[in-house]
Amino acid sequence: MKSHTEYLSFNTDEKIQFVRITEDVEKVVEKSGVKEGFVLVNPMHITAAVIVNDNEGGIIQDYIATLQRLVPYDAEYKHNVGEDNAAAHIWRQLMAHQVVLPITNGKLDFGPWEQVFYCEFDGGRRKRVLVKVLGE
Amino acid sequence: MKSHTEYLSFNTDEKIQFVRITEDVEKVVEKSGVKEGFVLVNPMHITAAVIVNDNEGGIIQDYIATLQRLVPYDAEYKHNVGEDNAAAHIWRQLMAHQVVLPITNGKLDFGPWEQVFYCEFDGGRRKRVLVKVLGE
Amino acid sequence: MKSHTEYLSFNTDEKIQFVRITEDVEKVVEKSGVKEGFVLVNPMHITAAVIVNDNEGGIIQDYIATLQRLVPYDAEYKHNVGEDNAAAHIWRQLMAHQVVLPITNGKLDFGPWEQVFYCEFDGGRRKRVLVKVLGE
Repeated sequence: MKSHTEYLSFNTDEKIQFVRITEDVEKVVEKSGVKEGFVLVNPMHITAAVIVNDNEGGIIQDYIATLQRLVPYDAEYKHNVGEDNAAAHIWRQLMAHQVVLPITNGKLDFGPWEQVFYCEFDGGRRKRVLVKVLGE
Repeated sequence: MKSHTEYLSFNTDEKIQFVRITEDVEKVVEKSGVKEGFVLVNPMHITAAVIVNDNEGGIIQDYIATLQRLVPYDAEYKHNVGEDNAAAHIWRQLMAHQVVLPITNGKLDFGPWEQVFYCEFDGGRRKRVLVKVLGE
Repeated sequence: MKSHTEYLSFNTDEKIQFVRITEDVEKVVEKSGVKEGFVLVNPMHITAAVIVNDNEGGIIQDYIATLQRLVPYDAEYKHNVGEDNAAAHIWRQLMAHQVVLPITNGKLDFGPWEQVFYCEFDGGRRKRVLVKVLGE
């Protein structure tokens, strides 16, 4: 059995920002030497998510508009005492915050449109994403 | 360590359709010979989800009605230029798109009501679900 | 390769209740002897979720208020024939029902604010959470 762990690091400029990280994850998988296994991609912050979806600019705008409509950032929240990021905590849950990706023959075993994104919902700070490979 | 990978394949007739796949996953687990481990069940398409929930027809109707109410399929979306499936991309995230299931003593380690479903949100095309077992 | 499985057990008094279980999961990880691996934390009931988020009372109230606003418990649902918990099934999906946590150097590899919660959405009954460790 092999394991391999790396930490991606981002300085997101925008409060809300999607960063495509498919190739970053692929590099970690390659370095791990794992041919058959899983890779966990997990934001280490609780106002962000890692998702698998389409690399298309329109849908990213649609995600943000939908989240804003359902759970407005500027509404009143109990959490927002000296904070303004309650909606970011909730958005991260609605988007499902982490993914486990399959590795087959040493590569991400993806369908044609699957891409990995880090979804920042409270940016302007340094953020980390854990990428952990387990397999053989 | 053992690993075993199979791809389930569906021709969903309906645009929106739930397909129970518990036994399909169980068969893959049995074939894998893994006694203790995890099985990842992951749609290879980005307008579908795999979930664990109740095998009861009413709740499936309730899911679809709730998703339609919160994120209507026919609303205006930036993604829907030559496409009509923006809502399906969003629904997949709201439902949490994939599951990792425990294998104990060679079987899915489930509570009494846990059932696995493939949730099609943009059907009428051939779809694939990856089932990957890792363990010993 | 090592694996280790335990079942946490709760008697939640409230219908809707968040229970912090970070230390419970840490103890299972320690007992497993796994230094590098994954731990799956999965409710064995289909009206509950396990999430990673902030240990702050306000945000927990915000989650519940948001879920109630988007998917009211007392609305009409097809599932609620002799049942009243349709919303709980839906809430569990919106919150993303399970987590896979990284283990590095024998410990949960968490950012500073990550905490594990069991989210009960239909309490007053005995509930179980599976904690399964896989690694080396």
